[in-house]
Amino acid sequence: MASSAPDQDWRVRLHTVIFEADTPAGKRFDVALLWAILLSVGAVLVESVASVRAAYGEELRALEFLFTGLFTVEYVLRLLAVKRPLKYAFSFYGLVDLLSILPTFVEVLLPGAASLRVVRMLRLLRVFRVLKLVGFLREAQILKDALWASRRKIVVFLSAVLVLVTLLGTIVYIVEDAEAGFTSIPMSIYWAIVTVTTVGYGDIAPQTVLGQMLASLMMILGYAIIAVPTGIVGAELARTDAVDTNTQACPDCGAEGHDDDATFCKHCGHSL
Amino acid sequence: MASSAPDQDWRVRLHTVIFEADTPAGKRFDVALLWAILLSVGAVLVESVASVRAAYGEELRALEFLFTGLFTVEYVLRLLAVKRPLKYAFSFYGLVDLLSILPTFVEVLLPGAASLRVVRMLRLLRVFRVLKLVGFLREAQILKDALWASRRKIVVFLSAVLVLVTLLGTIVYIVEDAEAGFTSIPMSIYWAIVTVTTVGYGDIAPQTVLGQMLASLMMILGYAIIAVPTGIVGAELARTDAVDTNTQACPDCGAEGHDDDATFCKHCGHSL
Amino acid sequence: MASSAPDQDWRVRLHTVIFEADTPAGKRFDVALLWAILLSVGAVLVESVASVRAAYGEELRALEFLFTGLFTVEYVLRLLAVKRPLKYAFSFYGLVDLLSILPTFVEVLLPGAASLRVVRMLRLLRVFRVLKLVGFLREAQILKDALWASRRKIVVFLSAVLVLVTLLGTIVYIVEDAEAGFTSIPMSIYWAIVTVTTVGYGDIAPQTVLGQMLASLMMILGYAIIAVPTGIVGAELARTDAVDTNTQACPDCGAEGHDDDATFCKHCGHSL
Amino acid sequence: MASSAPDQDWRVRLHTVIFEADTPAGKRFDVALLWAILLSVGAVLVESVASVRAAYGEELRALEFLFTGLFTVEYVLRLLAVKRPLKYAFSFYGLVDLLSILPTFVEVLLPGAASLRVVRMLRLLRVFRVLKLVGFLREAQILKDALWASRRKIVVFLSAVLVLVTLLGTIVYIVEDAEAGFTSIPMSIYWAIVTVTTVGYGDIAPQTVLGQMLASLMMILGYAIIAVPTGIVGAELARTDAVDTNTQACPDCGAEGHDDDATFCKHCGHSL
Repeated sequence: MASSAPDQDWRVRLHTVIFEADTPAGKRFDVALLWAILLSVGAVLVESVASVRAAYGEELRALEFLFTGLFTVEYVLRLLAVKRPLKYAFSFYGLVDLLSILPTFVEVLLPGAASLRVVRMLRLLRVFRVLKLVGFLREAQILKDALWASRRKIVVFLSAVLVLVTLLGTIVYIVEDAEAGFTSIPMSIYWAIVTVTTVGYGDIAPQTVLGQMLASLMMILGYAIIAVPTGIVGAELARTDAVDTNTQACPDCGAEGHDDDATFCKHCGHSL
Repeated sequence: MASSAPDQDWRVRLHTVIFEADTPAGKRFDVALLWAILLSVGAVLVESVASVRAAYGEELRALEFLFTGLFTVEYVLRLLAVKRPLKYAFSFYGLVDLLSILPTFVEVLLPGAASLRVVRMLRLLRVFRVLKLVGFLREAQILKDALWASRRKIVVFLSAVLVLVTLLGTIVYIVEDAEAGFTSIPMSIYWAIVTVTTVGYGDIAPQTVLGQMLASLMMILGYAIIAVPTGIVGAELARTDAVDTNTQACPDCGAEGHDDDATFCKHCGHSL
Repeated sequence: MASSAPDQDWRVRLHTVIFEADTPAGKRFDVALLWAILLSVGAVLVESVASVRAAYGEELRALEFLFTGLFTVEYVLRLLAVKRPLKYAFSFYGLVDLLSILPTFVEVLLPGAASLRVVRMLRLLRVFRVLKLVGFLREAQILKDALWASRRKIVVFLSAVLVLVTLLGTIVYIVEDAEAGFTSIPMSIYWAIVTVTTVGYGDIAPQTVLGQMLASLMMILGYAIIAVPTGIVGAELARTDAVDTNTQACPDCGAEGHDDDATFCKHCGHSL
Repeated sequence: MASSAPDQDWRVRLHTVIFEADTPAGKRFDVALLWAILLSVGAVLVESVASVRAAYGEELRALEFLFTGLFTVEYVLRLLAVKRPLKYAFSFYGLVDLLSILPTFVEVLLPGAASLRVVRMLRLLRVFRVLKLVGFLREAQILKDALWASRRKIVVFLSAVLVLVTLLGTIVYIVEDAEAGFTSIPMSIYWAIVTVTTVGYGDIAPQTVLGQMLASLMMILGYAIIAVPTGIVGAELARTDAVDTNTQACPDCGAEGHDDDATFCKHCGHSL
């Protein structure tokens, strides 16, 4: 079993480089990965432009094979670097990593599956992996926490908005002509969403006086209720930040997150 | 009167299943009701699409009779389950329940009343009944409270916005040509609302330099004053949340405002 | 001078009815005035619609004379009810009251001055007079105070936005074709305002790749910086409200506006 | 070296007039500068309008030479007034000052470089120099601080939004026809940005049912997540303001957080 230790050692070193960003080698790997992701995504983007595909189709295809090769090597290395490869393979990022390389292989085997190419765009999700590189993890965490803490209120709010636009869309469907674009209730609901969210494409717009009065009501409503999600998340962030300002830790139990006016630890009662 | 007790018993059990969601049977009933509501609303939605109505008109009509039958049985059961049926019948949800089934019966009697069908969409309001199922009642209550507490400020704000758009709409009516779509003062006010709320359909847009300057002013105004309702609701929610945090008072010094995870008073160190 | 006292008395009573809303007579007067204002504004609105003017032109004209007569009587009564009529006549509401009746008189004397009619819309401003009727004065005051306290920050913010849209509009003017609607720098700035405020009419839209990239940048910018005025007003309202929550008055000096955690009066040092 | 002192004196006086706004002469200089900037920018703006250029081209060109002359004199004076001219010349405002006059000189030497004219618009940035004139520096500083303190959260938020619109744009590209305007992935991403930021030009709009469902989802998403930057900046401003209120500490018990109108400590009653 003497060979096991160096083997273990090799895996730990690989893990440090690929999965972490604390060492110079790990940072270099992450920076290179970030560029590879952005370049490969950019290649998919420009390939979808007809004129570019006509002029540089071959080059872009070669580039795609190159990136797929690189990401395949990376995927295999990731599988080798972790102790339980299966757990990694079925994790969120493991699946994203696999979906980033699979389409090119499928396309080679089944030449007709060209529409699968866009699945490659999922590579973009891998960018979030590199957040740790720039040290924005804490900010991302705060935002995620605030949104997560607000999720129930946001769901309630969005349900109310959805019921509202459905009912208002139905009323507008009765009031307006089909010629103005309100051909069915679902289409009218689509228009109601466009209006209440203040997007306002203008491809469908009410023509009758009653329809325009209804639309006015909906715009003012949408303009007023946008306050609700903003208030929800704002209150949550304000609270998070308030808790956040105090960096005092209890000298006895080490608990953190004390209020600014606390003179005793709220967990063990020791004086701060 | 010996028959009264079991009769009472039967009513209580029915009430528990239909009106509450604490028991397994009550939960199952609510889930089934939720699906029935969503499916029947979906049927009304797709029926309004001309091509779908042409292809599946008969099936959708049969479905409608089925759902109306189900909701009628449910309505009768609700009337039986409460002690004072009339009070339920004239309550908000009682009327919504009735309006959800009435249009189909009216349509059978008066074949021409097809436009009544959309009244069925009111079924959607019944979805809110099921909020208790998912335990979001507290969040809904907080949002309702914050909006209710802000109602006077929001009314004042909306009145000011309405007066503003009316005056600005009138000025634009003088400035702009009728050919650009500003055919009357009400139409110009409609455009002013579309602009101030940042919806911006683009079906009517100013063509003259003066009109575009006025429009720019209004957009910037609308962009700036959206802050007001947001601030109102946000401040209200922040206050609700602050009060909400914890209602625990220290048994020793009586201090309040403890965090949810506090086990000792932060002012005197006494255990909570 | 014995006649002076009853004369004074008569003026006081008139003042109570016309300028205040505490007595039943004063309330009735305000409600009647509110209806007269809204109806006369409504008449001006519908008169501007060509088809309505063709059908009911005479009736609307008669109505206008009736309302002008009523408002003239009211204006004279207001002049009589105050001790210093000139001061009232040159106050904000005094001028609005005069401008509400003047156009009709001018029009009778100078038949060509039909465009003056819209000046009548200023009547709408008189609605704010009646705010005291519904007891929303305190809410209006809080909103006004918050906006007033934020005015300097809002001016700084709007100046920055104006400089930004001017520079971005200029860049887009260079990048885009005149054919896409970007015919001059002012027109491009108009488009930039339409874009940054998220109104988005769509009458002018970038056609080149560079223009669309710039537009994307501006939209995201506008979407992000809308946070600034909202944050300004929100923070101001939160502060106002925070001060507002404590209704405790000092038992010694009667001062109000204490913090929730205050145990001594901040003005005289007396314990609360 | 006796001549050095008066020379120094002269430089100090020039510096006081040109760079500061505390003296009457300094204020007059700043007001004159503000008008010169706004007028010269206005001249560039109207010159870009074809009809104005045709009618007043010569006059505007003369005006441009006048302003360039004035700004050149000012630039030279600024170089003379500071002790280290090079440091000023390469500072932000030094470069802006240079770029404000350079295009006219370049144009005289190279008649074809007409497109350089718009570089003159950078003059507008000089307006911020005059902020100190109106005493809004503190407000500008608070806003800058709040935005600066929020920068990391805003970057994280915008990165998430960019990844989101890229993925959603790609999906819509697959779902929608090229005929509806979704000709490539970059174009679809442009549309996704237009939609999520609630701008909604309407030049490209989804035509299929699936595309409209996706669009609805995106609008509601955009409508909900606008809360995030607003909450971030709002929480930051609320904190700044809270800290800002008062930095006074009680001389007796040392308590802080007093109101601006407090004359006695709210915790111990000691006079402040």
